[in-house]
Amino acid sequence: MIAMSLSPIFSAVRSLVLGLSLALASLLSTPGGALAQTDPLPSWNEGAVKKSIIDLVTRVTTQGSPDFVPEAERIATFDNDGTLWVEQPYYFQMAFAFDRIREMAPQHPEWKTKEPFRSLLKGDVATAAKAGEKGLLAVVAATHSGMTVPQFDTQVRDWIKTARHPRFKRPYNELVYQPMLEVLSYLRANGFKTFIVSGGGMDFMRPWAPAAYGIPPEQIVGSSGVTEFRLGKDGKGELVKTAKVDFIDDGPGKPVGINRNIGRRPIIAFGNSDGDLQMLQYTSSGTGLRLGLYVHHDDAVREYAYDRKSQIGKLDKGLEEAPKWGWPVISMKRDWKVIFPFER
Amino acid sequence: MIAMSLSPIFSAVRSLVLGLSLALASLLSTPGGALAQTDPLPSWNEGAVKKSIIDLVTRVTTQGSPDFVPEAERIATFDNDGTLWVEQPYYFQMAFAFDRIREMAPQHPEWKTKEPFRSLLKGDVATAAKAGEKGLLAVVAATHSGMTVPQFDTQVRDWIKTARHPRFKRPYNELVYQPMLEVLSYLRANGFKTFIVSGGGMDFMRPWAPAAYGIPPEQIVGSSGVTEFRLGKDGKGELVKTAKVDFIDDGPGKPVGINRNIGRRPIIAFGNSDGDLQMLQYTSSGTGLRLGLYVHHDDAVREYAYDRKSQIGKLDKGLEEAPKWGWPVISMKRDWKVIFPFER
Repeated sequence: MIAMSLSPIFSAVRSLVLGLSLALASLLSTPGGALAQTDPLPSWNEGAVKKSIIDLVTRVTTQGSPDFVPEAERIATFDNDGTLWVEQPYYFQMAFAFDRIREMAPQHPEWKTKEPFRSLLKGDVATAAKAGEKGLLAVVAATHSGMTVPQFDTQVRDWIKTARHPRFKRPYNELVYQPMLEVLSYLRANGFKTFIVSGGGMDFMRPWAPAAYGIPPEQIVGSSGVTEFRLGKDGKGELVKTAKVDFIDDGPGKPVGINRNIGRRPIIAFGNSDGDLQMLQYTSSGTGLRLGLYVHHDDAVREYAYDRKSQIGKLDKGLEEAPKWGWPVISMKRDWKVIFPFER
Repeated sequence: MIAMSLSPIFSAVRSLVLGLSLALASLLSTPGGALAQTDPLPSWNEGAVKKSIIDLVTRVTTQGSPDFVPEAERIATFDNDGTLWVEQPYYFQMAFAFDRIREMAPQHPEWKTKEPFRSLLKGDVATAAKAGEKGLLAVVAATHSGMTVPQFDTQVRDWIKTARHPRFKRPYNELVYQPMLEVLSYLRANGFKTFIVSGGGMDFMRPWAPAAYGIPPEQIVGSSGVTEFRLGKDGKGELVKTAKVDFIDDGPGKPVGINRNIGRRPIIAFGNSDGDLQMLQYTSSGTGLRLGLYVHHDDAVREYAYDRKSQIGKLDKGLEEAPKWGWPVISMKRDWKVIFPFER
């Protein structure tokens, strides 16, 4: 928008304003300054966990502090399922796939007698689940391949507009955690670049996650299938989604995905399951101040309660490792005043 | 740096300044305003190619224009070898590998009798090249695996400080193209996010490219080997580079890499070889205004002259396709006043 020729002048104006702003900041941050006491994490109860986040941010952003980190290196990574939004009764991407199976059924009469499609079409997810990993892969292949990336994008957008969560009766993208939205904003306001690093599908998240979290597509890292570049009959080049698995961004894959798409080690990372263990270990193994945090689902009343024995979002090894690495464990029950934005 | 609590005040101050800046801009951009006529691409000769770049930028950044593109969607991608820096007499990453072979030779007495190592140690690249792809892969495996990502990063940094190009007798990272540096700055000043999308190694580029081009590691997409997350004896988690190929970010792999690491289609893309053909096709296949450009190496005096028959950076199909897709071909000889920053 701004022509190159004006840059020097704008820089000068900006420098002036920055000076003014800093002067203002130092005025306001003096003890007793009312504005300085506004809570950056209002949905968090006071306690050790909230303090650990604010302490980390304060220390890495304080110039002259031994823990200071230049803005360009302030990387924050977040798991998605169970960390930024709900993952029960099963991953929302599975709900998408099941809904797509129902939509596509008229073109697939063979599904009426073939598991796990047969059970899914009857709405019997429990029986469908008995088809195991092979069955799930067949469902993913049927619903996540054979179309271009933009076509898939449209399917996900349409679904997220109309589908409703079975318990909360709300669109899935409303089931994001208000306290985590505040952490995202707080980190960004302090110069952090926020990334999603999820076991979920990259192409599944990118259509809705930017609006939900303020994170652009290029900062969304996830699992992916192989895509192939093809020139269509119209002469246009598109990426076609195939049924082959390309990359699983889970467990030890998360540090790999972080290196591949970010190329810097996080300063702070949030997860909620054993699938996030290596991301947190990788984060905490960096030099200087780092922080890993686990969201612990312990609130069956307001959300769900599960950990060591859950099929979805199992948190077992992570709970063992957390004290060894010094990772705060966020209790949803104790630490969060509200769970969802719509509760406020 | 800025506490959340101060954000509203800062926003207000920023809005004021933005207003002032825009008023200033409109003043300066009136016909006859001397400053507005400062050339954003001073190392480019006037002509159709320079005009095509400035026209694209002007149209997509003019609010209310039918070609306007919101800032978040302004993505620009650049091949690296031969597009942003020199790639002759062979890719600089190969020069790095050959230098590493010489450094590592004392620990590998078997290389004295084993091709292509034997020839490389004698400085005979031509004979070494006869070992073909298999030989090259052996060299890459020997020099690009068995260490952690941070260890490799250090090796590349050390090399780029000391190695010199055989013809120009300068550090390799000084052999970047001044006109392209101006394009990068010009695009960024106009709200574009600039990415490298290179067939070269991602881990090879990230140590030096941020300083050379102003592009951060998370915006550098390239080829990669498989990395594995391991907990070391000290209990720390590191990524170890293995000899297995993970992803080749070249040819049809470039749109795939763009989707994987960016998730948006470029508005403008620059390449110089047939390895960039699909990236340019993918770019030009998007809706709305898009532009692909080819750098043509036709200046043997100041740089190199090669295209259809070159082993390195072959540009054959691309020259056929360029007119069909409306891609300007940049003649280094005709369009660039200087090639390198040190010529100014």
